[in-house]
Amino acid sequence: MNKITIIGAGLSGTLLAIMLQQKGYTVEVYERRPDMRQVNITAGRSINLALSERGLRALQKAGIGTPILQEAVPMYGRHIHLAEGGEQFQPYSGRKDECIYSISRGGLNIALMNKLEAIGGCIHFNQKCMGMDYQEQAVTFQDTKKNKTYTISTEAVIGTDGASSAIRKQMMQQAPRLRFSFSQTYLGHGYKELHIPPKTNGGFALDKNALHIWPRGGFMLIALPNKDGSFTVTLFHPFEGEEGLHALEDTGKAKTFFEREFPDALALMPTFEQDWVNNPNSSLATIKCYPWQVEGKSLLLGDAAHAIVPFYGQGMNCSFEDCLVFLESLDKYKGNWEAIFEDYQQNRKKDTDAIADLAEENFYEMRDQVANPTFILKRKLETLLEQKYPEYYSKYSLVTFNPNIPYSEAMRKGRAQDQWLLEYCETIENTENIDWSYLLKQLQIL
Amino acid sequence: MNKITIIGAGLSGTLLAIMLQQKGYTVEVYERRPDMRQVNITAGRSINLALSERGLRALQKAGIGTPILQEAVPMYGRHIHLAEGGEQFQPYSGRKDECIYSISRGGLNIALMNKLEAIGGCIHFNQKCMGMDYQEQAVTFQDTKKNKTYTISTEAVIGTDGASSAIRKQMMQQAPRLRFSFSQTYLGHGYKELHIPPKTNGGFALDKNALHIWPRGGFMLIALPNKDGSFTVTLFHPFEGEEGLHALEDTGKAKTFFEREFPDALALMPTFEQDWVNNPNSSLATIKCYPWQVEGKSLLLGDAAHAIVPFYGQGMNCSFEDCLVFLESLDKYKGNWEAIFEDYQQNRKKDTDAIADLAEENFYEMRDQVANPTFILKRKLETLLEQKYPEYYSKYSLVTFNPNIPYSEAMRKGRAQDQWLLEYCETIENTENIDWSYLLKQLQIL
Repeated sequence: MNKITIIGAGLSGTLLAIMLQQKGYTVEVYERRPDMRQVNITAGRSINLALSERGLRALQKAGIGTPILQEAVPMYGRHIHLAEGGEQFQPYSGRKDECIYSISRGGLNIALMNKLEAIGGCIHFNQKCMGMDYQEQAVTFQDTKKNKTYTISTEAVIGTDGASSAIRKQMMQQAPRLRFSFSQTYLGHGYKELHIPPKTNGGFALDKNALHIWPRGGFMLIALPNKDGSFTVTLFHPFEGEEGLHALEDTGKAKTFFEREFPDALALMPTFEQDWVNNPNSSLATIKCYPWQVEGKSLLLGDAAHAIVPFYGQGMNCSFEDCLVFLESLDKYKGNWEAIFEDYQQNRKKDTDAIADLAEENFYEMRDQVANPTFILKRKLETLLEQKYPEYYSKYSLVTFNPNIPYSEAMRKGRAQDQWLLEYCETIENTENIDWSYLLKQLQIL
Repeated sequence: MNKITIIGAGLSGTLLAIMLQQKGYTVEVYERRPDMRQVNITAGRSINLALSERGLRALQKAGIGTPILQEAVPMYGRHIHLAEGGEQFQPYSGRKDECIYSISRGGLNIALMNKLEAIGGCIHFNQKCMGMDYQEQAVTFQDTKKNKTYTISTEAVIGTDGASSAIRKQMMQQAPRLRFSFSQTYLGHGYKELHIPPKTNGGFALDKNALHIWPRGGFMLIALPNKDGSFTVTLFHPFEGEEGLHALEDTGKAKTFFEREFPDALALMPTFEQDWVNNPNSSLATIKCYPWQVEGKSLLLGDAAHAIVPFYGQGMNCSFEDCLVFLESLDKYKGNWEAIFEDYQQNRKKDTDAIADLAEENFYEMRDQVANPTFILKRKLETLLEQKYPEYYSKYSLVTFNPNIPYSEAMRKGRAQDQWLLEYCETIENTENIDWSYLLKQLQIL
């Protein structure tokens, strides 16, 4: 018996299913929504994703890294649009060719579904998970098309059903018995998606190979390139306050606000008014919980276990890395689901907690710090260090480009480096006359 | 229109109803369970409560402090039963007559229900809250006796329905819209209740006026006196491990464990085996959430808003103090429920967070520190300070005996005092030759 039931055919569910199928397991995936290859189900909430080393490594393990990269746009750094009008480019890394990739969530998900079906995996769409009976080891679904409820019995269930996971809700109902600790923390900021189309001649309206940021202290606008020459634009903004998202529901007010704060971006958005009205204000939350598994019968993986805010561009990468870490436990304890699930959650929890914390931190860094002179000097120093010493990794690079270091260690080491460098930057005025080998030595012992 | 619907006729619901009724509001209370005056519904989970100054002040405001104190047993300190066999008394305060009161949850709740009905308040029993419709401002109940579902419309709803609040679950379902942050955190320890009966002649088998503790490092036993001469005993113990609660399900093993760890207590428990089998292993969690109110339509108060672990003896006191703080907002913004609820939650949240954190901390203090020599010296110093300078309050006294200081300030000041005194205790060997006025001065500026 090697039959595994996966709930949710999103990014982590389909990748995990591919990996398990490749290992010889029989995988059945149940998905609440219709098949996105037949029905458009985005509705202004498509936030572009930034694929980086950790996610890429998992895709490569599944043998689909190369075709997926062909659909992505590389971004080599942050292109900053300052409030006073200037622009600035901050490379992500001092190592040549290191970049992150802007990719469409829908396109990537479809590629994963196609691959899974091509190797014999099965996805049942329109099947809503209604709950799980741990005694009977049975899962109940509602076929939302046929409006029919039925129950299947299965050896092991993995819930990859995202931030509002049905499997996790089932665990919440039995919280005292499972001692199921759980937290959801909303930011005071939300987001709204907007759109910059390609130029009339088909080219990109902004520098193509960068993540654009308009940092403004209490809020910010970002833009990520799409393969077709357009940019997906996102405003991260407080809900409350005189010019908060609620107050800006009036499109006229919103336009006035953009004219003052982001005139260059607004000039590139001919559908600003429609997009502003049609696209929802979405909220941002961090979700943590533990345990992830119940008696070797069910396991949470991906966003179902740890939803994070998008500010480190690591949500998808973390979920893909989950799959790799899970495979290690699977190989170690073949067939013993309780041991596999237990080993996995014990290995992985500290790292998903770390990236959740780093992602919240990075929100404040992107919003408040990227235009700060000391911060800019520090970033310059880090880039030069990485150019001179490819073995050196800044905090951002540890998280983004060095999958050999777990998130928790990247956080510890990265924070220590940041603190040391910020203090050092207070003592210098520019990057001339620096004793680089002394710097490297000081940073290496942290 | 001054009609208020309260969900939950527990301690905070009934006290709040009394206070509102006394202010001229019309209050209807809906309670899920049967009337405890007619049906026994405790089932081995009655943890005795320790009433202290904050709770008492609220009861006095409602004019029922005096009759309730007559049913309580005063406790003047911790009576420690050491592992090596000795005993020790640590007074709670250096001020004469300051004590906390052991009281039965059931008896207190009944007294509050009787009072509420005596002044014209109405309690509907066996009415389970099924949900709330914020658009229609309507609450749906199931009458569990008649098995009938119905809906009422109401001006304002206050959920005092405890740690598993139905009103809070309703908010969880709309979490993204409300940006409802929530956390539940389980301790690795649980508890089981046991019983020491009165002596055959009717007297108390242990010192009557103390809270008894058998601290053992990783676990502890406590006992609180009851008016009838018995003690309610509680084992706080890890669930996992070779001698954890799960492993001790075997009563023989449990008895062996008690014979080794608590022989003096075991000798006083003739029904140990029955109690061990019949009483459940209960879990312990801290619950925090925010916001507490929705658009002036509903509000969470008491455990529904902030369940805490029992180790500071403040759960009930905090919920009673909630009622007092709520009355202030009520008087300030008469009739404007949104302003009342908003003012209340903004004033109160920091203090309930503080007592939640203090209660978790105190678990480790009671379990690990009360037998530690430096800690004992510090406690002795604090008691002497309070004797010499009645205006001085230790952290414990700030929380327990000084309701004029909010919990958040008690935490800040108390922690600073603790740290200073612990460092000072490292430099002395006993309490002789101490410059008391210097000590007081150092502590007063913290």
